[in-house]
Amino acid sequence: MHHLLTLEDLDRATITRLLDRAERYRADGAPRDLLAGRTVLTLFFEPSTRTRTSFVLAAKRLGADNVNFDLSRSSTSKGESLLDTLHTLEAMGLDALVVRHNENGMPAYLAQHARSDVAVINAGDGTHAHPTQGLLDALTIRQRRTDFEDLRIVICGDIRHSRVAHSDVQALRTLGSRDIRLCAPRAMLPESLQAFPGCATTEDFDGALAGADVVIMLRIQKERMADAQLPDAADYHAHYGLDTRRLALAKPDCQVLHPGPINRGIEISPAVADGPQSRILDQVANGVVTRMAVLAELLATPA
Amino acid sequence: MHHLLTLEDLDRATITRLLDRAERYRADGAPRDLLAGRTVLTLFFEPSTRTRTSFVLAAKRLGADNVNFDLSRSSTSKGESLLDTLHTLEAMGLDALVVRHNENGMPAYLAQHARSDVAVINAGDGTHAHPTQGLLDALTIRQRRTDFEDLRIVICGDIRHSRVAHSDVQALRTLGSRDIRLCAPRAMLPESLQAFPGCATTEDFDGALAGADVVIMLRIQKERMADAQLPDAADYHAHYGLDTRRLALAKPDCQVLHPGPINRGIEISPAVADGPQSRILDQVANGVVTRMAVLAELLATPA
Amino acid sequence: MHHLLTLEDLDRATITRLLDRAERYRADGAPRDLLAGRTVLTLFFEPSTRTRTSFVLAAKRLGADNVNFDLSRSSTSKGESLLDTLHTLEAMGLDALVVRHNENGMPAYLAQHARSDVAVINAGDGTHAHPTQGLLDALTIRQRRTDFEDLRIVICGDIRHSRVAHSDVQALRTLGSRDIRLCAPRAMLPESLQAFPGCATTEDFDGALAGADVVIMLRIQKERMADAQLPDAADYHAHYGLDTRRLALAKPDCQVLHPGPINRGIEISPAVADGPQSRILDQVANGVVTRMAVLAELLATPA
Repeated sequence: MHHLLTLEDLDRATITRLLDRAERYRADGAPRDLLAGRTVLTLFFEPSTRTRTSFVLAAKRLGADNVNFDLSRSSTSKGESLLDTLHTLEAMGLDALVVRHNENGMPAYLAQHARSDVAVINAGDGTHAHPTQGLLDALTIRQRRTDFEDLRIVICGDIRHSRVAHSDVQALRTLGSRDIRLCAPRAMLPESLQAFPGCATTEDFDGALAGADVVIMLRIQKERMADAQLPDAADYHAHYGLDTRRLALAKPDCQVLHPGPINRGIEISPAVADGPQSRILDQVANGVVTRMAVLAELLATPA
Repeated sequence: MHHLLTLEDLDRATITRLLDRAERYRADGAPRDLLAGRTVLTLFFEPSTRTRTSFVLAAKRLGADNVNFDLSRSSTSKGESLLDTLHTLEAMGLDALVVRHNENGMPAYLAQHARSDVAVINAGDGTHAHPTQGLLDALTIRQRRTDFEDLRIVICGDIRHSRVAHSDVQALRTLGSRDIRLCAPRAMLPESLQAFPGCATTEDFDGALAGADVVIMLRIQKERMADAQLPDAADYHAHYGLDTRRLALAKPDCQVLHPGPINRGIEISPAVADGPQSRILDQVANGVVTRMAVLAELLATPA
Repeated sequence: MHHLLTLEDLDRATITRLLDRAERYRADGAPRDLLAGRTVLTLFFEPSTRTRTSFVLAAKRLGADNVNFDLSRSSTSKGESLLDTLHTLEAMGLDALVVRHNENGMPAYLAQHARSDVAVINAGDGTHAHPTQGLLDALTIRQRRTDFEDLRIVICGDIRHSRVAHSDVQALRTLGSRDIRLCAPRAMLPESLQAFPGCATTEDFDGALAGADVVIMLRIQKERMADAQLPDAADYHAHYGLDTRRLALAKPDCQVLHPGPINRGIEISPAVADGPQSRILDQVANGVVTRMAVLAELLATPA
């Protein structure tokens, strides 16, 4: 494991090892100097303070040097090619490059063209993958239920455009889950199930929730609401918003996840977001230690 | 003392302890690892590179991890509520949150809704308070005069809209000062003296200066000069600018303070700003150690 | 040596000592705590993520605290004078100030008005100087050829407006080079050779390349192409672009340098930029260690 671009290629043992390490860091803290002298650079082509801050804290808490490459002021705005920027950063001595980009496959493209042994970590690329989110969601679920084989999991929202859904499904299937239901209005369901092997799709959220152990709600991009095929916010909430009535259809201990930031009153009601079944803030906390585990796994010299 | 939101509730012993610690840091330096492993996040809703840099240096010099949460790129711009941002940041593991906001009471609101034991530090909220400025001004004055009871203090400028004036008066009164004169054109005097107990007001700057031991000049917001009730810059300087002629009305060892950035030629003349009685750059130096003392007081586990 | 403003005043022994130190850092790494407790502030009035990142990494790798002063949000935008900003930053406790400015002489102006013993490092001022670039280019050349006296060196591009050309010539002449040819279309040649003592000028790139040991290509500002006196990009490439045919006119082991970011297909062809004679990425790597050497030289207390 040299880069982390997608969860597709990770086997169950590797994912389990990463989650175990993240869990250990959450419980006991981490060695403050594990990555002393290593450089982690964050390169975000899409704004995302949350995810970037999570990675920055992860790097600092392991003692790595962290630099944010501010694209709005960089040479790429002077017409330098992305690969020239990559090779320049590599020449400065880079151990990990955390990349977010709105185009599918851009982190893989950078990893493929890297000339040093820099580790490229995908922090979200287009609608393709968000592997650390998949890992942290699996960690969050595992803190309450380790029997992934027995779980009924519902993922609800704009599946078609969701890199989170892709990475969640990959993590959960590798850990043994088989009963995964993708739920959304038709325009938000995937056009093919190729990227979602073994998943069922439905437009009926109430039906999907029956007996669910886990519900993962996805953020609705308000911008996309303007699309004529899509319902407006109130209509969306009526059909696909998770409120207390609807959550009662699931199992009593059903866990509620959401990658954040949440749109209160659209895909999730405040009562559910803040309620006892919500794992949303646990996801945030798990996000930092999961990223620490990934950085440690990729960068730390084995003792 | 868990947060630092205002100086209202701090007693003399607490303020003195903070100033003593700041003084010790200024003289002898500080332990570079006192806050190792602690996270200080700066969250500025108003631009202020000076104050933010002062806090960042304070955090770094005590060994804390520092992250700046860049609001222009954050989820709050995607419509996430401020409290959801707060709870997300808390979940990432936050020890102190340094907040500047243009609305009065926003730091207190965040402190009230915090779910972790994060320490909220008010770095200036609207026209309400700027407690670290109050402390650093008191420290600056105390370096020359410890007899606060005997001091005649003049605060001149836009008192009505000044969070600095509020916090200065609170610090100085708690330390024993009783002769505090607030001086400004009528439109800039406070509408009530409730927040300025025991202070006198006057529109006559020359008169107020007679026998003064300390003059605190406030920054004039040039934007506000457009207000029809207010004099223009030249007129303001003629009546309320501190120049050498006017400073001579005060005691010979009168200290001149200004929170910066200064408007040369408006509220203060270059000769006074750069003259021997100016404490302006001492205030800046004291600002860093005062913020170190506050962070240490709030975050350091007692040995 | 207290500041680094230009290479004009550095003698051969000093430059050699700096390059030796940089070389040692590149080979063996550097002491991670050499500058522990020291503060390096970057103050860039022109956007330059590359150079800033290089300095930031240099500071961090020696253990210094680093703060970037974000001008777009600073008091200078509120009308504070640059000198007041300087003195404020000094009062916060600053060991080195790394400055880039579009006006010639601004770093020297700040150094001249500094009141503390802050070290001012010029990270590029107008068309005047870019001393760390001059040093790192000399280091790069020296890694292959130490006999500067014997080198035929061609510098090609917008010499007239190039701070890189100035600093390169100063470094190379101090190290003994005598055969330096400045090559450009007339409008880009210097109006006087005062700043380029002992250099020859020519508009004939092919002729200049004959027997060259080193070619330093300068970045063409596309913005300037609009200037009626200047050729367009294709025309420029035809006459002054370094491609494989042209490079074959130089010595077989001729080194190719470029300060970056490169304009592929304008001043340099991809085949040359990525070819075996290109030292461009070595320059980037040398840039970090050269800046480390400069910071160490200026800030480290002699053991």
